Amino acid sequence: MAKKEKQFRPKARRPRGFEDLSAEVLTAERDLVARAGAVYEAHGFGPLATGAFEYADALGKFLPDEERPNEGVFALQDDDEQWMALRYDLTAPLARYVAENFETLPKPFRRWQTGTVWRNEKPGPGRFREFTQCDADTVGAAGPAADAEMILLAVRVMQAVGLSAGDFVIRVNDRRLLDGVLEKAGVTDAGQKGRVLRSLDKLDKFGWDGVVQLLGEGRKDESGDYTEGAKLSPAQMDPIRALVESGKQESTAAAFTALEHAVAGSAQGEAAVKDMEAIASLLGGLGLSEEWAFDTSVVRGLGYYTGPVFEAELLKTATYEDGAPIRFGSVGGGGRYDDLVARFTGQAVPATGFSFGVSRFAAALRALADDGGRAFSGPVVVLSLEAGQEGEYFAMAQEIRDRLGVPAEVYVGGGKNMGKQLKYADRRGAPVAVIMGGDEREAGQVTVKNLVLGAEIAAEAASREEWREQKQQETVARNDLTGAIARALGHTGA
Amino acid sequence: MAKKEKQFRPKARRPRGFEDLSAEVLTAERDLVARAGAVYEAHGFGPLATGAFEYADALGKFLPDEERPNEGVFALQDDDEQWMALRYDLTAPLARYVAENFETLPKPFRRWQTGTVWRNEKPGPGRFREFTQCDADTVGAAGPAADAEMILLAVRVMQAVGLSAGDFVIRVNDRRLLDGVLEKAGVTDAGQKGRVLRSLDKLDKFGWDGVVQLLGEGRKDESGDYTEGAKLSPAQMDPIRALVESGKQESTAAAFTALEHAVAGSAQGEAAVKDMEAIASLLGGLGLSEEWAFDTSVVRGLGYYTGPVFEAELLKTATYEDGAPIRFGSVGGGGRYDDLVARFTGQAVPATGFSFGVSRFAAALRALADDGGRAFSGPVVVLSLEAGQEGEYFAMAQEIRDRLGVPAEVYVGGGKNMGKQLKYADRRGAPVAVIMGGDEREAGQVTVKNLVLGAEIAAEAASREEWREQKQQETVARNDLTGAIARALGHTGA
Repeated sequence: MAKKEKQFRPKARRPRGFEDLSAEVLTAERDLVARAGAVYEAHGFGPLATGAFEYADALGKFLPDEERPNEGVFALQDDDEQWMALRYDLTAPLARYVAENFETLPKPFRRWQTGTVWRNEKPGPGRFREFTQCDADTVGAAGPAADAEMILLAVRVMQAVGLSAGDFVIRVNDRRLLDGVLEKAGVTDAGQKGRVLRSLDKLDKFGWDGVVQLLGEGRKDESGDYTEGAKLSPAQMDPIRALVESGKQESTAAAFTALEHAVAGSAQGEAAVKDMEAIASLLGGLGLSEEWAFDTSVVRGLGYYTGPVFEAELLKTATYEDGAPIRFGSVGGGGRYDDLVARFTGQAVPATGFSFGVSRFAAALRALADDGGRAFSGPVVVLSLEAGQEGEYFAMAQEIRDRLGVPAEVYVGGGKNMGKQLKYADRRGAPVAVIMGGDEREAGQVTVKNLVLGAEIAAEAASREEWREQKQQETVARNDLTGAIARALGHTGA
Repeated sequence: MAKKEKQFRPKARRPRGFEDLSAEVLTAERDLVARAGAVYEAHGFGPLATGAFEYADALGKFLPDEERPNEGVFALQDDDEQWMALRYDLTAPLARYVAENFETLPKPFRRWQTGTVWRNEKPGPGRFREFTQCDADTVGAAGPAADAEMILLAVRVMQAVGLSAGDFVIRVNDRRLLDGVLEKAGVTDAGQKGRVLRSLDKLDKFGWDGVVQLLGEGRKDESGDYTEGAKLSPAQMDPIRALVESGKQESTAAAFTALEHAVAGSAQGEAAVKDMEAIASLLGGLGLSEEWAFDTSVVRGLGYYTGPVFEAELLKTATYEDGAPIRFGSVGGGGRYDDLVARFTGQAVPATGFSFGVSRFAAALRALADDGGRAFSGPVVVLSLEAGQEGEYFAMAQEIRDRLGVPAEVYVGGGKNMGKQLKYADRRGAPVAVIMGGDEREAGQVTVKNLVLGAEIAAEAASREEWREQKQQETVARNDLTGAIARALGHTGA
């Protein structure tokens, strides 16, 4: 009864920047989320889900009077003319949720959430417009204990996926440090502030001497291009330099002494140092030191952070075929955002959170595990060779599942061609195929064919004769079916 | 550094038809999906994810030349002017996926998928525009064995969530039966066909005698309103009546005999009966009889079905407070859709699948479990009563997680007010609170307060004195912390 569409045949293609995820990728992502979720729940964070759409004004990136606020997000207008947009992260919807339910929620409100987020950016190779995040947040907690707990959570998630100290580091900074230093330096003009930030961003590239030029009059690069400087005096640069150098101290204690000097006199800077010391003390008390680091270079992209910010970085590398290391870098981050709920309510509701990028993190974990990792194992495939015997095939598959706890299926593709069905079993990555043709059935027997061993032998065998001699299959009495499969699975280690 | 927005305060509200899901609901849904996924994977279906967006023409509900194809779906135009729409189910994207990757996929291709789908319908109380589905499909399998397997999967999922024969039934019909009967009756005009379908839809309401009027000249209801009939002759009604009555037979065998009579002479009808018999034979061979039923009244809403169709119905009822039964009805369905991939490729790719409505099914399961069901249990809450002792509180929470495997958290809301923190623990559903004030700390002790018992006693106690006498809390040596919590948890059964 399906309506026949006339001649139009749509081309089967994905919208740009959207991915299909294979069983291997999905299984890895599911495992990561399950482990992270277990960590979050063990720490008292309950799960929450919010809708994919929020009103555009509630997402907070856009002014409500713009006609088509589609910049950066996927937005559309509802029947009642209100603009809705797909969420670009899980934090803005959380702020809306807390503001909407403020009276009835326990405070602090602690939740974890995993879900898809969308960004309407220019797609490209490896640049997607849809990805999965996995967040934990505490809303309604002002003190550094809540921030320290976020770093702790990040560490525990890293440990839960099998990483050890040295494999990763959670880098910690505070937005108020640079703000305090700029305040001390008397930099208040937004344009000048922007130039200072861009100069500091070049620290890795040009070193402090290059940055000094950019902070001062300007810098000419090798090609002769001139970048106008921030026009700071040497005296104005001093606190900035002190901040940069505080991040290079040998010990956390020395770093804090240097920091205190750098921000001395700025109330927000001094508050940041005090909080950072409290965080360090809490984490140290839990035996964590190598797992996290104070790092003044951490800058999170999102504009809503107001205090401590965190970045989870993988240090462990995989290797390319030529031996060069594959670095994964940041797999998550977060920080304190004390103003996000206040956008709605006008009432200050301090909050802090951490977010993992599931796709990126899981891909890195897969690459790290790839040394000797096994391909996703397919189900045992029971061939369907005689018409009218499907009931027996289904019963065998059920028996395999029940007794061995391994996935099993009957070939349901139609036709009774054994070669085609064995090829299917191979492509599914089946460890064994179960064969019961007419001869076997009449003799009360069944054949278990070891496909993994077959493939290995085929790859290694010097000759076809040798290949044939190896024991790739076993014909047994029907009631020894699962025994023969267990032997085959044990043999291959699959 | 967050930009201050001037005076505008958005109202914290959800877009209409979108829900926030609580921890209780999400936990139930997650459990359901995990169980269904385990069943699917045990049967050889690997997980797959597709993107939220598809090109509108690929979704197949819309003509590509419409200017704004937003009817029923959420659609928007990409930068390159192409219309994209959020998927309204998981089957249409699967067809696109298979068509796009046809050459490289094993055939049949078997996958399961869970994910959010969106329908741009008029929202209302209990009517949402976003929900979660959980599907299994076999693409590239023509025979009834693949359909029988879908019914088997539905049964196994029902069993995996704890339901038994009698609690549910998978109702099975075939689109080709009615088509065959109409063919026999010589009903080919689309308008007349529509009137016949609408008449049959009234069978429950008016009985066969009322339907006869609607199939014939017309029917006047009690209010005097007249419904124009389908103008069939009594001879034309005979095969239709035979079809309806085939569904009322005592046994499956009798039903099939009646069916054969009803469709005799129609090639598609006869093919449907043959497939239905094969399905019955396969399921019977696996010992399934009460778990499924042939039912000619099953009609699935989606237009793409071409053969067998299934509907999973909960028979078990919960009860309202007045004792009236709460019926849940359909929680899933599916069927054969042989033309969906051919839309893209022109090549016939027979397919069949089953889909559970996760939100609806999980809600029903929660309602069914509610007789004596426990509320979601919160974490153990360690109160934060002295400044500078946060390290010790965090260490205690860690110890509780590590030794007892129960969730635990430190109160991070700020302030040192014990009453406020105990109230928070109560609102979180904490089974116990851990209290270490200055006196306890100096004495090397800690107090474990049983919040569940406290609440129960408060509810039951005749007097405040009696309530106070009960042992609601225990002060123990610090190193007996987890022992005391274990005793408290054992006592409450939490």
